[in-house]
Amino acid sequence: MVPHLTTALTGPLLELEKQFLDRASEIEKWFRIQWQDHLPPFYGSTDLRNSGFKLAPVDLNLFPGGFNNLNDAFMPLCVQAAQAAIERICPDASKLLLVPENHTRNQFYLQNVAKLVSILRLTGLDVRIGSLLPDVTAPTVLELDNGARLTLEPLRREGGRLGLEGFDPCAVLLNNDLSGGVPAALQGLDEQWVIPPLHAGWHFRRKSRHAEAYDRVAREFAATIGIDPWHINPEFGVCGQINFQERTGEECLAHQVDTLLTRIRAKYKEYGIADEPFVVVKADAGTYGMGVMTVKDASEVVGLNRRQRNKMAVVKEGLEVHEVIIQEGVHTFETVDGAVAEPVVYMMDHYVVGGFYRVHTERGRDENLNAPGMLFKPLAFETCCTLPDSAQGPDAPPNRFYAYGVVARLALLAASVEIEETEPAADALAV
Amino acid sequence: MVPHLTTALTGPLLELEKQFLDRASEIEKWFRIQWQDHLPPFYGSTDLRNSGFKLAPVDLNLFPGGFNNLNDAFMPLCVQAAQAAIERICPDASKLLLVPENHTRNQFYLQNVAKLVSILRLTGLDVRIGSLLPDVTAPTVLELDNGARLTLEPLRREGGRLGLEGFDPCAVLLNNDLSGGVPAALQGLDEQWVIPPLHAGWHFRRKSRHAEAYDRVAREFAATIGIDPWHINPEFGVCGQINFQERTGEECLAHQVDTLLTRIRAKYKEYGIADEPFVVVKADAGTYGMGVMTVKDASEVVGLNRRQRNKMAVVKEGLEVHEVIIQEGVHTFETVDGAVAEPVVYMMDHYVVGGFYRVHTERGRDENLNAPGMLFKPLAFETCCTLPDSAQGPDAPPNRFYAYGVVARLALLAASVEIEETEPAADALAV
Repeated sequence: MVPHLTTALTGPLLELEKQFLDRASEIEKWFRIQWQDHLPPFYGSTDLRNSGFKLAPVDLNLFPGGFNNLNDAFMPLCVQAAQAAIERICPDASKLLLVPENHTRNQFYLQNVAKLVSILRLTGLDVRIGSLLPDVTAPTVLELDNGARLTLEPLRREGGRLGLEGFDPCAVLLNNDLSGGVPAALQGLDEQWVIPPLHAGWHFRRKSRHAEAYDRVAREFAATIGIDPWHINPEFGVCGQINFQERTGEECLAHQVDTLLTRIRAKYKEYGIADEPFVVVKADAGTYGMGVMTVKDASEVVGLNRRQRNKMAVVKEGLEVHEVIIQEGVHTFETVDGAVAEPVVYMMDHYVVGGFYRVHTERGRDENLNAPGMLFKPLAFETCCTLPDSAQGPDAPPNRFYAYGVVARLALLAASVEIEETEPAADALAV
Repeated sequence: MVPHLTTALTGPLLELEKQFLDRASEIEKWFRIQWQDHLPPFYGSTDLRNSGFKLAPVDLNLFPGGFNNLNDAFMPLCVQAAQAAIERICPDASKLLLVPENHTRNQFYLQNVAKLVSILRLTGLDVRIGSLLPDVTAPTVLELDNGARLTLEPLRREGGRLGLEGFDPCAVLLNNDLSGGVPAALQGLDEQWVIPPLHAGWHFRRKSRHAEAYDRVAREFAATIGIDPWHINPEFGVCGQINFQERTGEECLAHQVDTLLTRIRAKYKEYGIADEPFVVVKADAGTYGMGVMTVKDASEVVGLNRRQRNKMAVVKEGLEVHEVIIQEGVHTFETVDGAVAEPVVYMMDHYVVGGFYRVHTERGRDENLNAPGMLFKPLAFETCCTLPDSAQGPDAPPNRFYAYGVVARLALLAASVEIEETEPAADALAV
């Protein structure tokens, strides 16, 4: 059973939620038309922040790793949406190879893989797991804490195809974000569907390109339903040539931070918001919440000490940070029993299939809740995101979850646009 | 809460269910490919009969009237599937006009309409209800026993468009089976989507054409997964020129009944089935369980008495019966507390969205459970039909419901084929 999130739902009543509720028909029609022009990603998840005056995505993950955190009641929704995703991308597939991250001890992640495998199997796919780990040289069974079991198998590359011993799949689904680059085994698979496309990996993706696409999507959406896009759209800036260890690029960073804070202060004034503005400095490529800094004044990014520089200089898999995005910080005013909660919305194809709260007892409202070693408590959404109820207030759980689903889908749509626009020419020729 | 259907699930263990479970990947792939070639109906429901040795559809309804009987837990599935249906058929629709049956007192039916409206509204459509009843001359509010309310409004025809006062919809969804023919208001709507197409109405549809399409679908499916199609396919015959009141055509009917019973007896012998075979004689056009007769020997259809003739001669809306289908009877061996239970599976687009049992305490295993004035107790499926669980026996509820979903989808696919093949030439030109 899922506890009631009453404490999380007593935040300031959002005019935004009411707008979403009142304009639900237009919103859904708008999305329908958008999805005719843009191919939805196979799957994705959005981290949202809700400050009461702003409901905005702060991350869009194209390799979602928390399917295990979803409410089991959402399983049929996941299966149905996965069927739609497969029909859209690889309808003739019957065998699918799943390539996960190289974690063999992270129980949470492995349970995510197990859940994902079971969802895909329920669509009728024959699913097996191929590991990029060099020490997986024979089928390796992992018994998970929750009773599930996973078999990792060594990959076999033959010409333009990737498979396993005795398993020649039609499609390769990545649940590995490619932060460390594209492994040789995954390069040039021109005879198979690779989902998502390789250029959606973090070796190539940039948060700023996503933010730029989101900015356009959010503006168009806001114009359609008649809201100020600022309510759903975090401001951002980019510094493209920074070297934390060598202390170059600090001026650019300080300048961008200052510009952004000035713009945010003006908006806070316009809307009578008394909170203190802040920005978040993040590595432009990379994930896992590494290389992230909360900043309230430009002076904080000048003359970083060694510890701070080390923290910012490298992200997952030792990737060096030379480009950063400076993003408007969005306070989290949702709490569960006094702990800060950040909603995460899960999508397959263009359908919202569920979500959960990342609840962290030791972090503040202006801090990143997705941090290395972070011990968050997942709290599955108790209802789904597709049943708004106009008979209830805009803040009632089904309506708040609907609003989450709307903003999460905007971020997903931005990811579609981003993937289209960043498709390398070589891939374009191969298609 | 939904009671456990334990009594219904203790029937003979079906080899068939095991086959479906073992071959689920192939089955789902097969369906995926079929749905690429055939447009799924917007919605549909299938009445199934399960004799333990045969699991077969006995009716496929293109205007399903029992959405109110579904488990509320399936609402998100319905909404998601309805979104898919709208995207496929009328993606640019924002206003939808629902035209229901002309019932104003049948609470069960009206609750179905209310449920359907709420599902469609949750996809973001602006939905209103237009009544074909001549005495609905102003908006008429019906308060339903379950607290829901419906507003019926008079239709307004303007040129090639149908609407309401101040409401010009992009799509017209029929929940009226057109048994009495196509009303003038619905003819020639060449500027709007009409869903399903008019030729799917019972003024035009023939059970025998559906049975013929189902026969082909079932054979192809059976060949794919390696089963005898007889396990899922009821035998049938047709008599095209019958007049019950004038007692013409009785010989044809008797001959067909005899031929069919002989074929069924041979199959019963082949499979060592001790039950007594029977056939069901039905009006080839028409629904609502009118004009239906259970027959165990050809002699029973010769020299019908006045009461029997009257029963068979006319169906819903006074339509005269001149064509009948003779269909192999499938015993119902599912029971709930000793009462006979017949599963009904609901689908939107090509997705199974739920189902319920029609439970009837006063009817036998070889009788039609969908009869006029019938008082069945609906019993919503407790789990959905898309989560088979190979860790459980083939007879466990999720697996039995999966098998129901497979056969129901075969009937839905047959309806797609039937609708394609019976499309009138004029419509073909208009498309």
